[in-house]
Amino acid sequence: MAKKYVEMTKSELTQVNAELQKEYDKIVESGISLDLSRGKPCKEQLDVSDDLFRTLTSSSQCISKTGFDVRNYGLLQGIEEAKELFGQLLGVPAENILVGGNSSLTMQYDAFARCMLFGVGEHRMSWIKQGDAKILCPSPGYDRHFAICEEFRTPMIPIRLTGHGPDMDQVEELVNNDPTIKGMFCVPKYSNPTGETYDEKTIRRIAELNPAAKDFRLFWDNAYLYHDFGKETKVANIFDYTFGTKNEDMVYEFFSTSKITFPGSGIAVMATSKNNIDYAVKHLSVQSINSDKINQMRHVLYLKSPENVKDHMKKHAEILKPKFELVEQKFHEAFDEAGIATWTEPNGGYFISLDIFPNTAKTTFNLCKAAGLKITGAGATFPYKKDPDSKNLRICPSYASLEDLEKACDVLSVCAKLAATRRLLEME
Amino acid sequence: MAKKYVEMTKSELTQVNAELQKEYDKIVESGISLDLSRGKPCKEQLDVSDDLFRTLTSSSQCISKTGFDVRNYGLLQGIEEAKELFGQLLGVPAENILVGGNSSLTMQYDAFARCMLFGVGEHRMSWIKQGDAKILCPSPGYDRHFAICEEFRTPMIPIRLTGHGPDMDQVEELVNNDPTIKGMFCVPKYSNPTGETYDEKTIRRIAELNPAAKDFRLFWDNAYLYHDFGKETKVANIFDYTFGTKNEDMVYEFFSTSKITFPGSGIAVMATSKNNIDYAVKHLSVQSINSDKINQMRHVLYLKSPENVKDHMKKHAEILKPKFELVEQKFHEAFDEAGIATWTEPNGGYFISLDIFPNTAKTTFNLCKAAGLKITGAGATFPYKKDPDSKNLRICPSYASLEDLEKACDVLSVCAKLAATRRLLEME
Repeated sequence: MAKKYVEMTKSELTQVNAELQKEYDKIVESGISLDLSRGKPCKEQLDVSDDLFRTLTSSSQCISKTGFDVRNYGLLQGIEEAKELFGQLLGVPAENILVGGNSSLTMQYDAFARCMLFGVGEHRMSWIKQGDAKILCPSPGYDRHFAICEEFRTPMIPIRLTGHGPDMDQVEELVNNDPTIKGMFCVPKYSNPTGETYDEKTIRRIAELNPAAKDFRLFWDNAYLYHDFGKETKVANIFDYTFGTKNEDMVYEFFSTSKITFPGSGIAVMATSKNNIDYAVKHLSVQSINSDKINQMRHVLYLKSPENVKDHMKKHAEILKPKFELVEQKFHEAFDEAGIATWTEPNGGYFISLDIFPNTAKTTFNLCKAAGLKITGAGATFPYKKDPDSKNLRICPSYASLEDLEKACDVLSVCAKLAATRRLLEME
Repeated sequence: MAKKYVEMTKSELTQVNAELQKEYDKIVESGISLDLSRGKPCKEQLDVSDDLFRTLTSSSQCISKTGFDVRNYGLLQGIEEAKELFGQLLGVPAENILVGGNSSLTMQYDAFARCMLFGVGEHRMSWIKQGDAKILCPSPGYDRHFAICEEFRTPMIPIRLTGHGPDMDQVEELVNNDPTIKGMFCVPKYSNPTGETYDEKTIRRIAELNPAAKDFRLFWDNAYLYHDFGKETKVANIFDYTFGTKNEDMVYEFFSTSKITFPGSGIAVMATSKNNIDYAVKHLSVQSINSDKINQMRHVLYLKSPENVKDHMKKHAEILKPKFELVEQKFHEAFDEAGIATWTEPNGGYFISLDIFPNTAKTTFNLCKAAGLKITGAGATFPYKKDPDSKNLRICPSYASLEDLEKACDVLSVCAKLAATRRLLEME
């Protein structure tokens, strides 16, 4: 049956629907328990960094090049070696690096909280006092960014993603004219979940914004900067366009080793202007005496250099690439003829963004759930969980085994196709 | 000259002052560089925990008893083993423990920030919106507690310390009648800097407060719970008097291993009611995916049990006790006759609180500084740095070597006595 669902007659659709329902019933009966919802590394990926456990084994390794014993209190901005390594990784001088704890999410939350509580920029008026801070959210996007905005009750404005970054006409129109637009969350490389990478022109236009709000801040979550599967999609360094300009203080870049070494036990950093570092450190000095500098030293000794990090990431790629390829192959097999879905095929990152037939995301999610397959909640990739077309699903291929992944794709595609035929029959 | 300074004639005082000035000039000339300002462990103390570097060396040690691979994302409240160990250490069930990152200061700051931003208790009205939150600060106290209050612009009300805890008549009068009193910071054992431990009656009265503010919170910083020098001063477990009562949600207790293993690279915890844990986790889930669980596992494997922690702390005591004894001996030698100073002689903790002649703390600080001895700033132990008598100095004997400590005490006592004679001569 080489016909697209939308081109089928009612009787053809009815027949396909019946067949899919049978397939679905069989799956339910077989009692599976699978999970495609978790954007976390699999066990084999964790094993890649096993030597990290045996990297720092003696106090003699704890003297920083500045002579500081990293076992003791101090060095709130991080140890010199870590500032240098992450500076090289992110393409900024060491002095522009604030080395944090184990979580870049925490650094984003805390940077956002400082804006809310204490304000930033020349006048440092807290966003809470200003009362009407709004945040731009390129969508589909990362649900944890949206959660931060919801936590602080800052209204989110979704921005269309173009395949090479946010719709800059829309962004410029809003940011350059409306002083209540205070920030934007971005994942510039292998964006979560679309996998798209902002192109150079887009990044330049972002860097050259003329925000009506003098305290506008960009939360630049470069989580996947080194997470290529082989063929790399390059991303421009936004600081190349902001350092030395009026927008020097506009950008907070975030990065971590959570998907390089161990998730939630790695090192997170914020890269930003010296002004912003000093301001953050001023408040951080009330919140903390220092981040875990022993873990910083452990990571520096283990990761060594940007070159070594790239080599290390190849081992992750070897595990991840076949999983992404499998999902893509399965999606082709399942959807090419039916013509009810499109999806992204990124060169890296952790996600595939699957767009199924409009207004079927929730039905598909529920069908999957009832069959024993957990997927990310329908709508989760949009602010307030409002997917305007109710069609986007975030697929996380990393955690499951290849075998489970294959089964999960089968289940998901049956569910998506069943939902599509139901919807089409309703629409008749 | 076995006479107290205050009993001396002007001519006697003038002579003593001249002698002290000579001594002081000699010290300045000799060009010392010493530091008594740092409440941080010395190198020998860091070496005590050296085996921690070799405790967790393989991924096979990373499977929690619940079957969870602690190398991966998850378990925001902490690994079960850590909740259990810290529960035993603090005398509460594991479910009442939230295991954090490397800093109990951060947990205090964040708990305070949640009160300010989101509110706590039944109505959860943010302290910011209520507009007039005030905090009680037993004084002299910990400057970093005061810094948190200043950060959030919550007015501090100093409370007199009695030698066995805060003046509870004053505390009850304020807390039980004024709904704008929202919290109190306490260091119940070996208080920073007075070294006093709250007695059972005081702790019971605190636990049984009837706060006018229904969202009153106690920030119970039990930093020195296991930091005895041998003879232990017992402290009551405040939860024995709050769990199961109307004040169940009133207490946040904080603790960390910073002065057990490595300062700023250890494990911090908050112990509190299940309600408060759930509420904290709800907000933390936006701020973080988990704390560093590998470091939690490393610490559990290393610290093993409360008994082992106590044995471990004996090694710290062996290093610290002679330093405290030396300072006390030197102070006796320097001040017993002159009669211008009193000081605390705690059974544990990190500080000696030295009260010198009224209105001479700043002069003494400046004299020390000019001579090359760094001490904690005069007034630092009081809210807004306002020591009402300008007499309190915080002495931190832990970091310096015994040799340096002896010299530093000599310098300090010459400076304090010189300042006292100057002051007395001015008062003539």
